[in-house]
Amino acid sequence: MTTELPELAEAHLGGLLDQLGLAVPYSRASGDTLYFTDDTGAEVAVDDFVGGYGSLIFGHHHPALTGLLHDLVDRQVPVHAQFSRHPYANDLAAALNRVLHREFGIEEPFRAIFANTGAEAAECALKHAEMERGRRVAALTAEIDEHLDAARTAAAAGAALPGGTATARLGAFTGVDGLIAAVRQHNVAQLARGPVFLTLENSFHGKLAASVQLTHNPAYRLPFRTLAAPARFVPVDRPGAVAKAVEAERVTVFDLESGDGAIRLVERDLPVIAALFAEPVQGEGGIRPLGADLAAELRQAAEAGGFPVVVDEIQTGVGRTGTFFAGAQTGLLGDYVLLAKSIGGGLVKNAVLLVRDSRYQPEFELVHSSTFAKDALSCHIGLAVVDLLEADGGQAYRTVRERGDALRAALDAVAGANPDVVAEVRGHGLMQGLEFRDRSDAPAGVVRDFARNGLFGYLIAGRLLRAHRIRVFPTASAPHTLRFQPSLAVTDEALARLVTGLTDVCALLRANDAALLTG
Amino acid sequence: MTTELPELAEAHLGGLLDQLGLAVPYSRASGDTLYFTDDTGAEVAVDDFVGGYGSLIFGHHHPALTGLLHDLVDRQVPVHAQFSRHPYANDLAAALNRVLHREFGIEEPFRAIFANTGAEAAECALKHAEMERGRRVAALTAEIDEHLDAARTAAAAGAALPGGTATARLGAFTGVDGLIAAVRQHNVAQLARGPVFLTLENSFHGKLAASVQLTHNPAYRLPFRTLAAPARFVPVDRPGAVAKAVEAERVTVFDLESGDGAIRLVERDLPVIAALFAEPVQGEGGIRPLGADLAAELRQAAEAGGFPVVVDEIQTGVGRTGTFFAGAQTGLLGDYVLLAKSIGGGLVKNAVLLVRDSRYQPEFELVHSSTFAKDALSCHIGLAVVDLLEADGGQAYRTVRERGDALRAALDAVAGANPDVVAEVRGHGLMQGLEFRDRSDAPAGVVRDFARNGLFGYLIAGRLLRAHRIRVFPTASAPHTLRFQPSLAVTDEALARLVTGLTDVCALLRANDAALLTG
Repeated sequence: MTTELPELAEAHLGGLLDQLGLAVPYSRASGDTLYFTDDTGAEVAVDDFVGGYGSLIFGHHHPALTGLLHDLVDRQVPVHAQFSRHPYANDLAAALNRVLHREFGIEEPFRAIFANTGAEAAECALKHAEMERGRRVAALTAEIDEHLDAARTAAAAGAALPGGTATARLGAFTGVDGLIAAVRQHNVAQLARGPVFLTLENSFHGKLAASVQLTHNPAYRLPFRTLAAPARFVPVDRPGAVAKAVEAERVTVFDLESGDGAIRLVERDLPVIAALFAEPVQGEGGIRPLGADLAAELRQAAEAGGFPVVVDEIQTGVGRTGTFFAGAQTGLLGDYVLLAKSIGGGLVKNAVLLVRDSRYQPEFELVHSSTFAKDALSCHIGLAVVDLLEADGGQAYRTVRERGDALRAALDAVAGANPDVVAEVRGHGLMQGLEFRDRSDAPAGVVRDFARNGLFGYLIAGRLLRAHRIRVFPTASAPHTLRFQPSLAVTDEALARLVTGLTDVCALLRANDAALLTG
Repeated sequence: MTTELPELAEAHLGGLLDQLGLAVPYSRASGDTLYFTDDTGAEVAVDDFVGGYGSLIFGHHHPALTGLLHDLVDRQVPVHAQFSRHPYANDLAAALNRVLHREFGIEEPFRAIFANTGAEAAECALKHAEMERGRRVAALTAEIDEHLDAARTAAAAGAALPGGTATARLGAFTGVDGLIAAVRQHNVAQLARGPVFLTLENSFHGKLAASVQLTHNPAYRLPFRTLAAPARFVPVDRPGAVAKAVEAERVTVFDLESGDGAIRLVERDLPVIAALFAEPVQGEGGIRPLGADLAAELRQAAEAGGFPVVVDEIQTGVGRTGTFFAGAQTGLLGDYVLLAKSIGGGLVKNAVLLVRDSRYQPEFELVHSSTFAKDALSCHIGLAVVDLLEADGGQAYRTVRERGDALRAALDAVAGANPDVVAEVRGHGLMQGLEFRDRSDAPAGVVRDFARNGLFGYLIAGRLLRAHRIRVFPTASAPHTLRFQPSLAVTDEALARLVTGLTDVCALLRANDAALLTG
């Protein structure tokens, strides 16, 4: 019955990739190399600087990890054993705690909620933060209720009711019962307000229906703004902006204070902000490291406001920047920490939300769950990834820093030789970005069109793949910035080829050579 | 620096499981059997009727699938190759299309958007449906704008403005410009309304931050109601309820019709409902098959309202009920179809949202993505699962129906012999539920406490595991209903043991024997 079927899996995107020569069907992957088969049947190697968008700190098919996967399957380790004991999940959580305690110099345990993807972990953080906020709101409400009762008692004992100022703010009321009713009526409308999430401009926290509202890129966010609670985006380059954002979202409720023979109307802050999200290095926003000053501002604002900081280490974590947690380099410790990508070892899908014990809501375990999460395959692989990083006194971190320096030197060389084309190189460790100067005002033609359509980086990616067998991509929300996230085994030879390729691209851009750029 | 760490991965839940003897650390899994090691070091077999919450239509570690996984890893098939050609994803999408076309007797292609979990696929459906609704709203707005322009032209040509009725509905206005301004002002408030999703009572569509609002269970949903757009839950047992729900959500905007020398104020329906979600057999709601009449009502309402039906086959699909799509048995064809669980073959994490070509939004591909989705491992395993089901002219479906009948006969035998304890057996194929009579009013004691706390099914699960080495669980939102979802290889011997175990449980419940039930 079925007639000829069209291309069914993202044909529109496939067409765009095809135009640029990017629609290559890769058939094999190993280390920092992807392979495809050319028309003659020969296997062609491509240097992969995309690294699964930061998921391959040990490269494609690392033998220790593929060996473990084979072994787990051979031993018939249960993949589906929901609602049983998962010692491997606890082992992974404990391993992550030990690293976190060392890198941040703290001792408080972090509880682990497992998910399957970074996007899911972000959603778990939203849910957990809102559950926490619900508790804070309930505690405040209970306290105010007690105070209202106390005021009634105080009034019966002759305490004076508040005067004209209160009437101006509450409207007219009669007696203490009228006062209490007026306070309650004012508060009920305020208490019904939904949460606000704070995050930073250029942020990326995934694309699921609620968490995409915390992803700054309007193209990803706005079509779905009606689906979920909004975020307020805080500028990253203005000292004091975090505190200002908190102040702008401030909502108060009324309370009554009784004592010294009088009842006074006072204002209490309502916990409106559920959480503040931040990436230690903003990935999709253009590989932008957050400075220590901003990290301190974020922590101060959260501590003053009583809400948690959610540090999204999905892309920066698991050794990518030379420490396990990138936040450790600037003191950006989360009350919640998100991990995914490289924790899957390039083979499985895993993610974890770590929550500081003092903020953890045990009841969350009874209302949240996932069929696929917390499984043995993912947890064992994740534990092996942590072990590989921690082995030999953390040799892997030193390797990341050394290879990161080499990558950075290669990119700096390109930037230094082509200051008219390259605007900046940014990043930490093996997470580097190279930003081209904006070409939106280039002479009319293909390059300008791509720049104006937000596809500039894909144009460059096409040239590098076709002419140099190098795989790069732009960051998702900053299309003039190329991302470089190879594994810690990236070779000097691959870096030399990268310099050659980027130098060629710079020359073509300088010459505005659309023919060669588009292939 | 790290002091002794507590249990970190869901310790609260672990404690509850431990109380009931359910906190077993399974060490091996094969077919319909999970194994743990007892105190003597001996391996103990447990009959697994949970089946990964419906994820194991071919059982744990099916040799064809584990063999394929080994082979894919040995061949170093690229797991991370985002933004390249994914022929395997297209192959899986095409295979699903061929089955869908055959089972529903249609020819329209369904486009595939890949995700990693059923929960993510549900979020993708929410986003895609809202993007579609955005288009419908924009089309209506554009049409009204044209009509307002036409009205201005008509008025200039002497057409009469609408009279008193319009003034009553719009407020006073002066001239055609005033009329148009009043129409626009009325409409702008209506157009700002967020979407409504319809779904059924007892529904379960996952637990991510937006989709959990479509999951009926208030314990899962209400703590997070402030995070996302709300759903309206339609009763399943009242004919006409779907149309009534649509009518209750009806919102109109104003438009102007010009002709015959007059301008008339008319109302237009605003597309407020983004989608209607339904499961062909409600899983977590208690294994409740939806009838053909309700399926027809859902389709009619959606066609009349112009919104899509999202059929959630996450648990029912992939052969579970004796056809690939459970909806094929009652004519419940989705405009969107969700698949996950068994499509992962018990080894990997995969999910797919299928969208009818005529509703598909190609731009969705440019604004939605996932690092882990659409990967080669998952897609190849998924394709092998479809091939296993389709082999030998669909022998697997016949096996599911035959084994499903045997499972049903076993449960019916228990129900028939214990009508005072068992209320009902429900289901299709290898997705069966056995509902116990409510014990909330049992004589005071442990059984009543568990029933009142929504943990009755876990009490029964504990007894069956401890005394009979049988693994069962209740459905998530109907704790008096046990779920039975073994693989198509479930043996008569296992079913006989199940009958013995359930018969014992019935006797204990009849005797209100708390000591043996709690162990």
